[in-house]
Amino acid sequence: MASCRPGFTNIMHLPDKPREECGVFGIYAPGHDVARLTYYGLYALQHRGQESAGIAVADGAKIQIYKGMGLVPEVFSGDRLNHLKGHLAIGHVRYSTTGASQPVNAQPLLFRYSGGMLGLAHNGNLTNVTELRSQLMATGSVFQSSTDSEVIVNIIARFAQKDLVDAIVKCMIDVKGAYSLVIITENKLIAVRDPNGFRPLCLGTLDNGYVAASESAALDTVGAKFLRDVQPGEIVVIGDNGLESIQVLKPRRRAHCIFEYIYFARPDSVIDGFNVNQVRREMGRVLAAEYPVEADIVIPVPDSGTAAARGFAEASGITFEEGLMKNRYIGRTFIQPTQDMRDLGVRLKLNPVREVLAGKRVVMVDDSIVRGTTSNKLVSMLRACGVREVHMCLSSPPIAHSCYYGIDTSNEEELIAARMPLDEIRRLINADGLYYLSLEGLLNIFGSARDNFCTACFDGRYPVEVVKTKEAGKYSLE
Amino acid sequence: MASCRPGFTNIMHLPDKPREECGVFGIYAPGHDVARLTYYGLYALQHRGQESAGIAVADGAKIQIYKGMGLVPEVFSGDRLNHLKGHLAIGHVRYSTTGASQPVNAQPLLFRYSGGMLGLAHNGNLTNVTELRSQLMATGSVFQSSTDSEVIVNIIARFAQKDLVDAIVKCMIDVKGAYSLVIITENKLIAVRDPNGFRPLCLGTLDNGYVAASESAALDTVGAKFLRDVQPGEIVVIGDNGLESIQVLKPRRRAHCIFEYIYFARPDSVIDGFNVNQVRREMGRVLAAEYPVEADIVIPVPDSGTAAARGFAEASGITFEEGLMKNRYIGRTFIQPTQDMRDLGVRLKLNPVREVLAGKRVVMVDDSIVRGTTSNKLVSMLRACGVREVHMCLSSPPIAHSCYYGIDTSNEEELIAARMPLDEIRRLINADGLYYLSLEGLLNIFGSARDNFCTACFDGRYPVEVVKTKEAGKYSLE
Amino acid sequence: MASCRPGFTNIMHLPDKPREECGVFGIYAPGHDVARLTYYGLYALQHRGQESAGIAVADGAKIQIYKGMGLVPEVFSGDRLNHLKGHLAIGHVRYSTTGASQPVNAQPLLFRYSGGMLGLAHNGNLTNVTELRSQLMATGSVFQSSTDSEVIVNIIARFAQKDLVDAIVKCMIDVKGAYSLVIITENKLIAVRDPNGFRPLCLGTLDNGYVAASESAALDTVGAKFLRDVQPGEIVVIGDNGLESIQVLKPRRRAHCIFEYIYFARPDSVIDGFNVNQVRREMGRVLAAEYPVEADIVIPVPDSGTAAARGFAEASGITFEEGLMKNRYIGRTFIQPTQDMRDLGVRLKLNPVREVLAGKRVVMVDDSIVRGTTSNKLVSMLRACGVREVHMCLSSPPIAHSCYYGIDTSNEEELIAARMPLDEIRRLINADGLYYLSLEGLLNIFGSARDNFCTACFDGRYPVEVVKTKEAGKYSLE
Amino acid sequence: MASCRPGFTNIMHLPDKPREECGVFGIYAPGHDVARLTYYGLYALQHRGQESAGIAVADGAKIQIYKGMGLVPEVFSGDRLNHLKGHLAIGHVRYSTTGASQPVNAQPLLFRYSGGMLGLAHNGNLTNVTELRSQLMATGSVFQSSTDSEVIVNIIARFAQKDLVDAIVKCMIDVKGAYSLVIITENKLIAVRDPNGFRPLCLGTLDNGYVAASESAALDTVGAKFLRDVQPGEIVVIGDNGLESIQVLKPRRRAHCIFEYIYFARPDSVIDGFNVNQVRREMGRVLAAEYPVEADIVIPVPDSGTAAARGFAEASGITFEEGLMKNRYIGRTFIQPTQDMRDLGVRLKLNPVREVLAGKRVVMVDDSIVRGTTSNKLVSMLRACGVREVHMCLSSPPIAHSCYYGIDTSNEEELIAARMPLDEIRRLINADGLYYLSLEGLLNIFGSARDNFCTACFDGRYPVEVVKTKEAGKYSLE
Repeated sequence: MASCRPGFTNIMHLPDKPREECGVFGIYAPGHDVARLTYYGLYALQHRGQESAGIAVADGAKIQIYKGMGLVPEVFSGDRLNHLKGHLAIGHVRYSTTGASQPVNAQPLLFRYSGGMLGLAHNGNLTNVTELRSQLMATGSVFQSSTDSEVIVNIIARFAQKDLVDAIVKCMIDVKGAYSLVIITENKLIAVRDPNGFRPLCLGTLDNGYVAASESAALDTVGAKFLRDVQPGEIVVIGDNGLESIQVLKPRRRAHCIFEYIYFARPDSVIDGFNVNQVRREMGRVLAAEYPVEADIVIPVPDSGTAAARGFAEASGITFEEGLMKNRYIGRTFIQPTQDMRDLGVRLKLNPVREVLAGKRVVMVDDSIVRGTTSNKLVSMLRACGVREVHMCLSSPPIAHSCYYGIDTSNEEELIAARMPLDEIRRLINADGLYYLSLEGLLNIFGSARDNFCTACFDGRYPVEVVKTKEAGKYSLE
Repeated sequence: MASCRPGFTNIMHLPDKPREECGVFGIYAPGHDVARLTYYGLYALQHRGQESAGIAVADGAKIQIYKGMGLVPEVFSGDRLNHLKGHLAIGHVRYSTTGASQPVNAQPLLFRYSGGMLGLAHNGNLTNVTELRSQLMATGSVFQSSTDSEVIVNIIARFAQKDLVDAIVKCMIDVKGAYSLVIITENKLIAVRDPNGFRPLCLGTLDNGYVAASESAALDTVGAKFLRDVQPGEIVVIGDNGLESIQVLKPRRRAHCIFEYIYFARPDSVIDGFNVNQVRREMGRVLAAEYPVEADIVIPVPDSGTAAARGFAEASGITFEEGLMKNRYIGRTFIQPTQDMRDLGVRLKLNPVREVLAGKRVVMVDDSIVRGTTSNKLVSMLRACGVREVHMCLSSPPIAHSCYYGIDTSNEEELIAARMPLDEIRRLINADGLYYLSLEGLLNIFGSARDNFCTACFDGRYPVEVVKTKEAGKYSLE
Repeated sequence: MASCRPGFTNIMHLPDKPREECGVFGIYAPGHDVARLTYYGLYALQHRGQESAGIAVADGAKIQIYKGMGLVPEVFSGDRLNHLKGHLAIGHVRYSTTGASQPVNAQPLLFRYSGGMLGLAHNGNLTNVTELRSQLMATGSVFQSSTDSEVIVNIIARFAQKDLVDAIVKCMIDVKGAYSLVIITENKLIAVRDPNGFRPLCLGTLDNGYVAASESAALDTVGAKFLRDVQPGEIVVIGDNGLESIQVLKPRRRAHCIFEYIYFARPDSVIDGFNVNQVRREMGRVLAAEYPVEADIVIPVPDSGTAAARGFAEASGITFEEGLMKNRYIGRTFIQPTQDMRDLGVRLKLNPVREVLAGKRVVMVDDSIVRGTTSNKLVSMLRACGVREVHMCLSSPPIAHSCYYGIDTSNEEELIAARMPLDEIRRLINADGLYYLSLEGLLNIFGSARDNFCTACFDGRYPVEVVKTKEAGKYSLE
Repeated sequence: MASCRPGFTNIMHLPDKPREECGVFGIYAPGHDVARLTYYGLYALQHRGQESAGIAVADGAKIQIYKGMGLVPEVFSGDRLNHLKGHLAIGHVRYSTTGASQPVNAQPLLFRYSGGMLGLAHNGNLTNVTELRSQLMATGSVFQSSTDSEVIVNIIARFAQKDLVDAIVKCMIDVKGAYSLVIITENKLIAVRDPNGFRPLCLGTLDNGYVAASESAALDTVGAKFLRDVQPGEIVVIGDNGLESIQVLKPRRRAHCIFEYIYFARPDSVIDGFNVNQVRREMGRVLAAEYPVEADIVIPVPDSGTAAARGFAEASGITFEEGLMKNRYIGRTFIQPTQDMRDLGVRLKLNPVREVLAGKRVVMVDDSIVRGTTSNKLVSMLRACGVREVHMCLSSPPIAHSCYYGIDTSNEEELIAARMPLDEIRRLINADGLYYLSLEGLLNIFGSARDNFCTACFDGRYPVEVVKTKEAGKYSLE
């Protein structure tokens, strides 16, 4: 229940980035310290959520849970972990899109239902949650949190009189939207991915066990070997009899979130067949091919623009330089500059290197612009160092539509690319040039898999119907 | 989610006492800072629960909540309170009978149901909770905590399609056992007491408003004037139109918990017509009359035995002395003495005063003995100070039966009075005499109200049927 | 460095009381866990200081220390204690008279000097500290804290080229005022008391060792047996060769602080030959003899007035009642009532019991009045309960002079008894009668020892010359 | 006084790196919020010390201080900063070489001496501290900490009867070794650098004021403009009359710490005329020229090896790749893997990217090897990804001698390069090749300034005489 101190704010990320909402991890591994491995797995997924963390462990008879607000190492002490004994576990890290951080929304959720106990960790966002919740409430269900995950649990509980997997199947028919789930019962680990495969989820093997995780980097971290991605529409049940797969729903058109490659995922993860770092570098290469800018140096906005900047430099032949240095000690909390110190805000995180920049024509590569609030400051800092020209290059197409599948991209009216034409944006951020990677160029990177992605935030083509109200995206119990 | 540090233990109370489980507080007072008044009200009820505290505030449109593990001033900061704006509020302090303290069990509970939002704080224990929960789960309900309060909420939600008060009435028909509830909606405060009136609940008036509280001392603390006790079986609804009373169920035989007078309640509270301090003093007087011991001094085990000791001294004519001094700084956490320092345990809390005790024949008055673990150490300490005789006098009859209505008296097999005859207890605690107040003598104190009390822990006559299993008393989600 | 949260305030004590500044503890006991025993000893002395706590432990070769802001159990965890290994230790609890609580002022102080290492804990106040400090600074000494204890250490260090005890002797010649010290070296425990014996200090024996403490109750708590008080002007050195006593200075006129008996010390302590509780009770008896008030009941202001009230009741024959109930859960921090709730302030700590008070003529016994801010509120609360007459009886003479020997009695201009005649005070607090114990009556209680006390706060006769400036009393490094 | 929780350990850095001990910051700027600017300045210097942080602020009349254990944002809240009012300030971040972190060692130190008050923050290490301390103790000085900074303060205090700057001059004559100091009095900011200029210290100007800082990046962060480096042997006094310089000692041979460029300093800092990032890149280029390895890719050990790896790639024409991905969320505390998970240790921080590495001959560039404990694990991780050859390239010569001027390089006997020949190291870390940058090559980078550096850790030529005992390097008060 401890949370951010007043006056402090989270500046681990630059402010003008979309936000991933969650990371999930599950493990079934008799003979291993599953709580501790889940701790390390969540640690490797920390970039997917810094607001709360939780671990639920089962030992065949019961499920124990501990969760709290904060980063993984803030929530868990060695003592806490030692008390979580068992041979299977799930874990969750969460970033919440609601303004106030709410302990009640921390996951995993743990419930008792007619069939026993059930813990659940969810990454994604349902699109018909309001409707589903109303139906459930009409027949007496109550809700303690504002998470759509609680809706999933209630639906499963309604159907689970006989068989849990049957109930999950039925639930998958009812719910729409994005969900990668890891579920724990007293003795089973279940991994579920929605029929479109919006959010990532992969499987690994560990000596005598299995691991499921949002990203393969978490498998690496715990010493597991990558097995395969969970398929869209698949339920994977892991228990005493090993791994069992149920292809519940005929996979619909795949709609993997393309922003995982652009910004969210760790560069060392392989997601649905593609290494993130290589994709990012290729984005830079394609961007350079699309826009043959004349310039002296290419610099990234670290860290998210680094791989694309390198690709850009390689393809264009322009020298790569680190023109902006990042303070590696930026923490979760920080006293914000007062109004009259406002221009210090970005500088605390990124410091321009005059020796590198002065007198140069600069290509600055970033992954994306959401509201445009930071780019202007970056350009100003460069100019103050004597840069002659600034060409802002983005390794993604313009973000012009909100996401309803688990990413916080701000409301559509706040998206700068939805509000004004490109040239106006360029003027606003005071750049000499502004270049976005084309959607076509982006998709071509994936070759024959080019149709497997959700690109709704760029083109507004939502793979699963959405109700464009604020309530669809956010729902508050308070 | 912060809780007791490992190696620390709660020694605010002597270890060998029954435990009250909760205190509740509610207020409806436009124009007042209801969150802050609830804070003070809970502060005045802190003795009823030290494990968690919570406050929910409504402003006519929404309900906000904050709760956490720890004492009231540990959970709430001024900032927290300032964020809880509204004109009605409920609050709760909790001592949990389950071994591990569980944030998920902290109250008030806050739920969204078909009729809107609802917060609930509960003091008491249901006796048919397992059965009720099974029925609810069979039709799809899920439970996140191990509290029977969550069962109450689910029943209300099932019935509340049209009218909340109707639903509460229906719930009161279904549930059995002890419950004093304060309920908050967006604009109403509701107080409910079970048909037997097991746990206390009273009403007060405040300039332009109403207050409900477990004890009248909480009314005093916030400057409210005592109005009356909530009647067994009554629902009191407080809103824009003032106070409305619904006598739902014909009151059954009253069964007020007599242990409120013996040990739990604050001495300055008036409960169901009797001032607690005066009752305690009278217990001492009756005890003296029943057992005309020859002794030099009467000493209490502070603080719970002080009033009775004074009454004993008055009636017997034996001099009252403070022979055991209590360390007033005993806090919630404390590093326990190691095995080889074990005899320091009681001494840290109570220190015998040799000057008072040496060479004397002593009557030591305490309120009750549960497992007998502390009495023996107290007697030894007295003897080490040169006391000639120790007569242990208890202002309650022997506790020989478990409570199922909201008190943690330990399992029946641990109750010393259930395990051995009185003379054996006396030998075990090494006293020269051991005297319990008779049940008859105890009840006579209440005059014509003598049949209005639950005395099940003494005589095993349970006013509401109980299933004597461990599961009836405790139910763990974990 | 953690300290009180803003908006919180220490209300463990009623606001209108003098403040003791410190408690000290020392132990030399091979084979015992001396850190843990010091922890318990400090716990027993917690009433003497709640602002910081510290323990230094030596093992023959080195001294380790840990200290922090807060109550003893807040500062020390089991882990901390386990790291403090050795066979001798000293400890300190501190209440600081300076407004801001300063980690740098926490004790024990630990220094390296030419003779090795030295830890020191001090209770008392020097009267010539400004002069001594100037002399030391003139020859190059620097000071990191505002404590006069640091001056003592520097003087010892100046003289300690050859022998530590010699240096302490020389120091005792230079410094004036009140000091009870426990000093630790790598292998010796030293206890020192100033020639007037202002502040208490006693010795006890433990199986295979010795204990020194501000009060005998701390000896009891750790299972030590009272041996004797340290004599005014005595140095006690405890080491491998047992206990060695050096009567340094011919004892001057004894000047034991009489307020230890009136208010500060634990009732179960024996100080310089008198049990505190018995003295307090006798004060009440004498007070009753001096003022034969007609009344129906005697009530104490708990807890400090309880023993005297009992004595008053015994001597006067008027019935003793508990008319004010104290909230036992008052902690160190607490959100203060806002301006418009101001009358709740005292009520949160003390609640009048209407059943006891209504219609009665009441004698209310308290130990002392400093500024008079609380008494008025208490009288008002009683009158609001229907009390007919309130006679305020104080078990001490009027406090009309500041203390310069280690007690915070406020500046002289704030002392109500220095500002107005008795009858005006009575009117101010709105009592029907106001009676102070006479100084003569107070001293007579001690029989032949009646001249052994410092009574400067009553009669202005300071046993050791003081410079009556603010700087004499307080000195801030900041 | 809060410090690392047991079982946790600081893994912000890879374990096998030298440790910088401190960073200092000073500001004189009427009209600015100097406490907050110091906060940001320390934030920018956080990489120089993560154990404690402190700020002292003066307002012309007095000095106030706050310091604590932990990172800058952990120690300071907005409230704390708001209480530190004034127009000049100094600040300090500290990493301590002593095993236990000690609140008493946190800086700035604040003292009262005959001339008033004085705060001091120190980066560096004196080499004759034991001798100086003995002299001071012989004449009565006492020491509360184990820092040599306290020795400096005592010397200044001894000499400062008339004039502070005179005293500093005299102090500079007495003390030997490395010291960059910022000193604060009630109304002056003083910056001092030792005659060899071991540790960096530079000056900047701010609208209406001056700033002094260990690194120029801290000037950038607070919006100050770089003015110049403080000269070896110079005292800079900043007050109402602006900046005054006193070149105290004729500068001896300059001996700037070359490890600032290799590892410690931020890449965006300019130190004594050289931009750190550019030097690092040049190191990689020289290294490539010295060792023409045949390989497929060059990868850095991030982040310390990144710039050199890039230079190596540029010079050699071999492709630069990010083959090791760093977890950006590594925090100060972390539950260490258990013995049987030991190989997870490095992987938690650095994860190899199989897609980049498999089948390749790899040049891995790091800045230095101290004890060699990590390199072996890195090589193993690479081989497990199918790397064909691993050539370890280090952008520094072998570290074969301990530093006595403020860097923690471990004891000489632990330095792998002092213990075995190069080829044995190569076998130990299981690399196919191991190449160190030559000292000659390193120095040539600095052109005509090549003789201005301390290279004692490589060649054992100590610019200032050192006593090679453990005590010279470390001195513990405990």
